[in-house]
Amino acid sequence: MRLIEPQSIAVVGASTNGKGFGVQTLLNLKIFDGRVYAINPKASHIAEVPSYPSIAALPEVPDCVVLAVPREGVEAIVRDCAAAGVGAAVIYSSGFAETGKAEFIALQRSIVDVARAAGMRLVGPNSIGFSNYGRRALISFFGALGPVQADVATIGLISQSGALGNALSQAAECGLSFSHCLTAGNSCDVDVADLVSYLADDPACKAIACLFEGVAEPERMLQAAQIAWQADKPLVIYKIASGESGAAAALSHTGSLSGSDAAYRAAFARVGAVMVDDFESMLETARFLAKSPRPSACGVAVIAASGGASVMAADKAELHGVPLPQPGEAVAAALRGIIPEFGSARNPCDVTAQATSDPSLLEKAIDSMLSDPVYGAMVLPNVYAGPAIEERTRILGERARHYGKAACVVWLTQWGEGPGAIKVEQHPDVALFRSTGRCFAALAAWQRREAHRALGARVLQRLAPVDAATRARALLQAAPERVLTERESKEVLALYGIPVVTEGLAADADEAAALAARGGYPVVLKAESPDLPHKTEAGVIRLDIRDEGALRRAHAQILANAAMVQPAPRLNGVLVQPMVPAGVELMMGARIDPLFGPLLVMGMGGIMVELLKDTALALAPVTRAEALGMLRRLKGAALLQGFRGSAPVDLEALADIACRVGEMAADLREQVSEIDINPVICAAGRTLAVDALIVKTA
Amino acid sequence: MRLIEPQSIAVVGASTNGKGFGVQTLLNLKIFDGRVYAINPKASHIAEVPSYPSIAALPEVPDCVVLAVPREGVEAIVRDCAAAGVGAAVIYSSGFAETGKAEFIALQRSIVDVARAAGMRLVGPNSIGFSNYGRRALISFFGALGPVQADVATIGLISQSGALGNALSQAAECGLSFSHCLTAGNSCDVDVADLVSYLADDPACKAIACLFEGVAEPERMLQAAQIAWQADKPLVIYKIASGESGAAAALSHTGSLSGSDAAYRAAFARVGAVMVDDFESMLETARFLAKSPRPSACGVAVIAASGGASVMAADKAELHGVPLPQPGEAVAAALRGIIPEFGSARNPCDVTAQATSDPSLLEKAIDSMLSDPVYGAMVLPNVYAGPAIEERTRILGERARHYGKAACVVWLTQWGEGPGAIKVEQHPDVALFRSTGRCFAALAAWQRREAHRALGARVLQRLAPVDAATRARALLQAAPERVLTERESKEVLALYGIPVVTEGLAADADEAAALAARGGYPVVLKAESPDLPHKTEAGVIRLDIRDEGALRRAHAQILANAAMVQPAPRLNGVLVQPMVPAGVELMMGARIDPLFGPLLVMGMGGIMVELLKDTALALAPVTRAEALGMLRRLKGAALLQGFRGSAPVDLEALADIACRVGEMAADLREQVSEIDINPVICAAGRTLAVDALIVKTA
Repeated sequence: MRLIEPQSIAVVGASTNGKGFGVQTLLNLKIFDGRVYAINPKASHIAEVPSYPSIAALPEVPDCVVLAVPREGVEAIVRDCAAAGVGAAVIYSSGFAETGKAEFIALQRSIVDVARAAGMRLVGPNSIGFSNYGRRALISFFGALGPVQADVATIGLISQSGALGNALSQAAECGLSFSHCLTAGNSCDVDVADLVSYLADDPACKAIACLFEGVAEPERMLQAAQIAWQADKPLVIYKIASGESGAAAALSHTGSLSGSDAAYRAAFARVGAVMVDDFESMLETARFLAKSPRPSACGVAVIAASGGASVMAADKAELHGVPLPQPGEAVAAALRGIIPEFGSARNPCDVTAQATSDPSLLEKAIDSMLSDPVYGAMVLPNVYAGPAIEERTRILGERARHYGKAACVVWLTQWGEGPGAIKVEQHPDVALFRSTGRCFAALAAWQRREAHRALGARVLQRLAPVDAATRARALLQAAPERVLTERESKEVLALYGIPVVTEGLAADADEAAALAARGGYPVVLKAESPDLPHKTEAGVIRLDIRDEGALRRAHAQILANAAMVQPAPRLNGVLVQPMVPAGVELMMGARIDPLFGPLLVMGMGGIMVELLKDTALALAPVTRAEALGMLRRLKGAALLQGFRGSAPVDLEALADIACRVGEMAADLREQVSEIDINPVICAAGRTLAVDALIVKTA
Repeated sequence: MRLIEPQSIAVVGASTNGKGFGVQTLLNLKIFDGRVYAINPKASHIAEVPSYPSIAALPEVPDCVVLAVPREGVEAIVRDCAAAGVGAAVIYSSGFAETGKAEFIALQRSIVDVARAAGMRLVGPNSIGFSNYGRRALISFFGALGPVQADVATIGLISQSGALGNALSQAAECGLSFSHCLTAGNSCDVDVADLVSYLADDPACKAIACLFEGVAEPERMLQAAQIAWQADKPLVIYKIASGESGAAAALSHTGSLSGSDAAYRAAFARVGAVMVDDFESMLETARFLAKSPRPSACGVAVIAASGGASVMAADKAELHGVPLPQPGEAVAAALRGIIPEFGSARNPCDVTAQATSDPSLLEKAIDSMLSDPVYGAMVLPNVYAGPAIEERTRILGERARHYGKAACVVWLTQWGEGPGAIKVEQHPDVALFRSTGRCFAALAAWQRREAHRALGARVLQRLAPVDAATRARALLQAAPERVLTERESKEVLALYGIPVVTEGLAADADEAAALAARGGYPVVLKAESPDLPHKTEAGVIRLDIRDEGALRRAHAQILANAAMVQPAPRLNGVLVQPMVPAGVELMMGARIDPLFGPLLVMGMGGIMVELLKDTALALAPVTRAEALGMLRRLKGAALLQGFRGSAPVDLEALADIACRVGEMAADLREQVSEIDINPVICAAGRTLAVDALIVKTA
């Protein structure tokens, strides 16, 4: 890519007064191993770099041109570059689409048009540039780092925000190595998805750490993540604007719902990317994943010279669901022979302060625990910045490599960059964390990556009949209102093979009584009306009607309540359904995310989903394994296993429904905006969609 | 205190070979401004300190004696010290109660007895000692810090774990100032509660940061926290062993339940202490609280030279419930005049990278926002380690002090101790955080402290009749079984003025029918038996019985189901209750925590409390304001405000019941182990205890 691996770079807008972003860029390019030019008709040299009056006057067509000029000058220079056949332009200038003003949004669009027509790539505008450390190309006005030493866990950094990218890259001063620091600014052309794809292929980068706020075309981002996964290159993502207020601000122009953070999580989980919740987790997690072999077991061993550090590790392991199993009997016996009686010859293993006077004690304990196949990784908290940690890290790393296991040092001393820290950071086999919580979060992510790998290739097996989509579209078209009635909605479900409760539509009380007598009591009565989608609130649903007298009373009440609604609702009649016995209730549904398209949503029924937001999301359609995984992720999942003595529900039946709903959402993504089956009731060995609502696209 | 402010120190066990914990302590005491002695008959000097053959041979009675000897030698030396009138002894030696072995637990107890009889205090055993930096007394074998410069936010450190205390104290290398680092080890005599009380009174300490695993006498810890609160000294607590596994391990000897972490949180909230969730939050939070004035408003202003940093701040503010309001119109207009159009003249305020070339832009924006009374604090994310941050911090601190507001710099650059960091850390009016999330968590805690202050003195007003406790104890004594029946339990509730559903006990179906006819249908039937505390699971409860036929069928079923239980339950009869209409259900109850005594517990009804652990806890009894606060803290609180069109519940009535349950739990703490009212139903303007269970002390 001429952009990221340029042979020649020209900087437009470097001032002769020795100041400003252009000059700073020329200074940062002093170490570049290619050719550098300034474009300024007023000088022959700027910052000792030869200067030319125009792009056209350069002795060669540069691969990359940097625009350090005010907004007003950008378009003309982009045209010059395009005309000259420049490979790519990096635009620092601000004041384009990020102002939110139509005129500057249009200006940004016009420079993109010029560039695309010429096959030229654009970075920015509103960008701080980027660095390719291997090529010593520091194409940025920000106080850039010099060349960075590569190591086994060299990180490729990508940040939509230039300033945050730069903030991350300064970790190089603490011993981290970076291959690139690539920022996208307004992403008018090159965006984070392009950059992820690029780094996925670049052998200098061992793991990608990517920060962004939002992407316009998420499927390209997912494809990029998929490329990284296939290259076995860990991809760590921190998506900001995750909160409702941040997301509302950041995504208002796309019309995306505030729930989109959940959609991002669902989407990235599917491609094996690791999402972190904090800025400060990004680099630690990426380094750890780059340094660590694949987990051979999910157990983690903790070895500390402090009881307190051991307890802290146990707290955080539990929080993140990382098991700390006890060693096998042979290893346990070996530990008892090594550890003083006031220590703890268990996991977590407290070797006590005696390890300070007898380093071989620690070495033996590390070797014993790592030899146990129950452990795939070891965590060693370090409570003191000083030379001792260097030797301990050497031992830990050497033994971990020997056994093919992961090793982490948690740097608990609050002298964060104190003696020894840089040596731990630079160890090829030991990952450094400055937080016990973040260490265990990363271990959990490492194990989830392995679980994702174990899933193998996604095989989607179509469950619904081949003609379901065609027939469903016909039904949707025939439905008179945008919001389908319950009866209409359930007809669509039935086309997809989703078991729905049987029902009859009664024109009056006599017909209702006849239907109930035929099907048997108890029954449920519900008004069937395109104008009453929320039946409970309107008082037009009656449950558990046990005899004809009750049925007639209920029928009269429903009609009376419906009559009170203003404006008067149309009434197709009253539905008569068998009363499904009480059971475990879920909701299943789908919505069409403006960014990600069809999303399958499920949750425990009623209050749980609305009030507690206990839902699981996935991009639709889903495989059966994914559907089962979603069910297990619900906070209320214990209810599915049989809670308070109730029988466990038929998970396979639920997963089957979920797969069919996912197929429906994917098939009908252009026709429907919402599918809501609530409740699905699991009772007495049956799993039934009892009520449903489908909303057509506006 | 002769222990923490000694004039003279003697070290027993310093070896003549120049190595070991004793010699290291003597070296650490080189800078001590009092008198130091070694006790070793084999030398006249050790590490240039004069050595004496015994405590008795010293030229004075030392205030503090350090025991750096094996366990076997400890008791004799403690006796010598006690006999000589030594003020306190610090015992490094391990192998006492922490081994869990009876013989060494007894040994520890016997040295405590010796010390207490002589009025001598003991630190440890299994301790690393402690440091009083103001007195230059570094009484520790750990690589101790030299004297530390005091500043306006000097922290007093307390840690049960010696190693973790030491790990925290190394932050002094990054510019934090400490008055003390006090560790407790096995806490055989001096414990963290003593140390908190001590530092609460010590003017050198401006805020206390305290880490511990568990305390044997929590009321002493709470008293100490109360002393700190009254001294207006921020107390930041990180309690480890918070997880179930950690707590199980750490507290197995006390018999405390795994739920005790919730009890600790409830207890410390009541005394205004700030609990943090991470080791790395302790010092940042304590420094921030020590540097910050009281909040004048709950709004926080964010000002950044990076849009990404602004969005991150918005995310974390939302997560921690910290409002980021927009400025008033005058300030907004001023900002629009200052900020470039591609920035954001709002809150968060993005001054753009232009602030790098025009520092006055940032100063004007800071001043404008801080002048707005809607803000009580300002957060400034810093994305680059370099000299510019020093000037920005100076401006921020100066303006914050001028307006009497709090100021934070979030150090986002991952060069954690890069240029400028130490200057920010040492600024008297600006707090440094290395995490946006931790910064907003601390701001939230700061605001909670103010809310706690606003509560004023706790005034407990007794609601229950004066004779309730006496009469309740009589009923409890009269009840034949440890688990009271529903009817017996509700009689106790009624004594406390808690509204319970009326009921009758029927010996047979005829009596039940007569009772139902008298009270009116629908009714509920329940078996009344001391052997069937879980009626739903046993199938001995029938709801919503609408007529006599249904009642007789239900009665027969209940008897049949009861007859199937093995061993056969005793049956007092069947309770007939009016069917309380469906409504919002809660549970209220109490348990007696082995550490904290009576705890009031409430939660949303049924599944919500058991499955989702949606509960609020407080030490009982509670004030009405506390009870209302607990109700509002429930995740399901939206249900109480009227959810899905239902009427809001009577919160005052619920709070009234909660207060009465709290009084009952406090009164009967010796007699009952558990009170469980489930459900309390709020429906149709009434709030009623519908079912209840009281369990007597074993």
